[in-house]
Amino acid sequence: MKRRVIILGSTGSIGRSTLDVLARLRDEWEVVALAARSNVAMLSSQAAAFRPEAVAISDGAAESSLDSALLDGVTVFQGDGALVQLVDSVACDCVVCAVVGMSGLRATMRAVELGRRVALANKEALVTAGSLLVPLAERTGAAIIPVDSEHSAIFQVLDGRRGEEVGRVFLTASGGPFRTLSPAAMDEVTVEEALKHPTWNMGPKITIDSATMMNKALEIVEAHWLFRLSAEQIQVVVHPESIIHSIVEFIDGSMIAQLGTPDMRTPIQYALTYPARRPCPSKRLNLIEAGQLNLLAPDGERFPALRLGYEAVRRGGTSGAVLNAANEAAVCLFREGAIGFCDIARYTEQALRQHAFIAEPTLDELLTADQWARDEVARCMLC
Amino acid sequence: MKRRVIILGSTGSIGRSTLDVLARLRDEWEVVALAARSNVAMLSSQAAAFRPEAVAISDGAAESSLDSALLDGVTVFQGDGALVQLVDSVACDCVVCAVVGMSGLRATMRAVELGRRVALANKEALVTAGSLLVPLAERTGAAIIPVDSEHSAIFQVLDGRRGEEVGRVFLTASGGPFRTLSPAAMDEVTVEEALKHPTWNMGPKITIDSATMMNKALEIVEAHWLFRLSAEQIQVVVHPESIIHSIVEFIDGSMIAQLGTPDMRTPIQYALTYPARRPCPSKRLNLIEAGQLNLLAPDGERFPALRLGYEAVRRGGTSGAVLNAANEAAVCLFREGAIGFCDIARYTEQALRQHAFIAEPTLDELLTADQWARDEVARCMLC
Repeated sequence: MKRRVIILGSTGSIGRSTLDVLARLRDEWEVVALAARSNVAMLSSQAAAFRPEAVAISDGAAESSLDSALLDGVTVFQGDGALVQLVDSVACDCVVCAVVGMSGLRATMRAVELGRRVALANKEALVTAGSLLVPLAERTGAAIIPVDSEHSAIFQVLDGRRGEEVGRVFLTASGGPFRTLSPAAMDEVTVEEALKHPTWNMGPKITIDSATMMNKALEIVEAHWLFRLSAEQIQVVVHPESIIHSIVEFIDGSMIAQLGTPDMRTPIQYALTYPARRPCPSKRLNLIEAGQLNLLAPDGERFPALRLGYEAVRRGGTSGAVLNAANEAAVCLFREGAIGFCDIARYTEQALRQHAFIAEPTLDELLTADQWARDEVARCMLC
Repeated sequence: MKRRVIILGSTGSIGRSTLDVLARLRDEWEVVALAARSNVAMLSSQAAAFRPEAVAISDGAAESSLDSALLDGVTVFQGDGALVQLVDSVACDCVVCAVVGMSGLRATMRAVELGRRVALANKEALVTAGSLLVPLAERTGAAIIPVDSEHSAIFQVLDGRRGEEVGRVFLTASGGPFRTLSPAAMDEVTVEEALKHPTWNMGPKITIDSATMMNKALEIVEAHWLFRLSAEQIQVVVHPESIIHSIVEFIDGSMIAQLGTPDMRTPIQYALTYPARRPCPSKRLNLIEAGQLNLLAPDGERFPALRLGYEAVRRGGTSGAVLNAANEAAVCLFREGAIGFCDIARYTEQALRQHAFIAEPTLDELLTADQWARDEVARCMLC
């Protein structure tokens, strides 16, 4: 019998790569539902190709044009709660959470509640609510498998190995397009420049997060939750070639690293097929052509965002929610041209400093902290 | 109850490192027997420190001085069959085979026959008689765990993963001290120069094998047997820093590599503690200090030995025995100053060309081929 998979965020970069992977795994997998925010045209053509039982579109404004574009017999969920409804209604073996930002949190949580395998590309959910998601997954038996290339690397390396044997992990970071830019020039960075990543081809939010290295800060929090690591166990090493995707150091000093071309189809597919591996369309790495792998210390002065990740891990509680939401809001403002590039980390740090910390927050308290942080960033801008 | 370990070749480089590791694992392991070729003084002091039940010394000439140097109650095996007798008589959980060259084959075989875990540093045994050792281990349930850093790397990476998911393995090679030497200058290399390895501190035989890259040829055959890989699945990549110890490419394109300082205590300990890991005294790798990892194509013209490894894998049968024995004899002649550096590969190749190939040899036929190859190299020298 084929395994059934739901893709939340099917029209985004990770969603499309997921469908590319699944198109070659049709013998084993059946795409039973697709969800997107507002791209009705692409969602319709994906539905035509994969014949899901249901689709969801979460942006109310886009609803009207959907029905007519779909084939008969497809259940349609629309509006705010559409993603959660979809996860609730369609039985499946795996939910791919590839929604960008916080909007995927409730649906991810529902999938974990239902004990599904969750292939998690939506790191924001884990950064915000890891303190709820991870214990919940332990209770329901849901496997949360990271799709992020760095965390997939660690997951692939740890596979079957015991946590107490892990010394440290080294998250590699390309350093983004401004790795060698002077702090002064950094202030002048344009949106267009920030959207040009040297090695990875990704969606806009994560590309800007890479440029500020806030992406690595979020990944520090993500690694903390996924692998139950302390802040001291998580190191960042700059690796401009993006070939080594991360490294685990075990207590005997042995290091195990995962390498590959910067192609998300490999970690996406592994999250689906784990613990098995299947042939994958991703481009093969030619070690000799790669030739040289550089490893550098990250520059904390040039990239103040990094230390915010450590701070969020050390403080825990609502800090992750504030870090993520403040950054998400600041990135929006930067993309709108309302604030400068360096303001992203600055405003995020300010929100972290100002917020009324709660040590063991409920989901509502996390969502309140999230909203507060967004408002705080807007207030900062007006100051 | 403590686990019991026998060390064959305890006074050599690997043997001493093994005891260094075991000195820190006294809570878990008991050294029950030690064997050496002729270094009575060191064997005695090791016996005084570890209090084994038995010792063996295989060189007849060294026998006389042993008894008086040992503590009461230690059983002593002497002469030609001493190693096999030792393995036969002393019950244990693991035999570390760290004897240099072919002299360890019969004892290794006996340990496999008895179903012991074999921590194998003696690659010559596997290169010569892999066609017997590997099926024998499958029958008796003996685990053959490589101690060679490259094969330990692959073993660590494959741990628990299925063979059919392996695409290729990349054995890394430092390239030795003559990586960039001109072929003409190569002919003038002295024994002293060949004994200076740029990254690893090892015994003399393997150091010269590294300089000719015959070591990598032997490792190709070793990888073939240990991991059941075809010649096409085994690649060599030159990595002068000796930090990446080898890389496995899976069928999905994901590569997993093991990294570390060039310290044999890590793979030695892993062979003992597998599947667990324990803190190890080996020096930690500092990724930032390492800074740059280079990967280069091997130069088959400068190092003709390499293709002999592939040839031995493709032909199978007695080829491995001839490759190993001819090389062992040629290295001896080179160390004695009787032949030049480039003659090592030349004579070995000639022996491979001349020998009367047997496809499915018995142990006696392998030993005959081994002796024939040694004689052939001596004959070559006289021509």
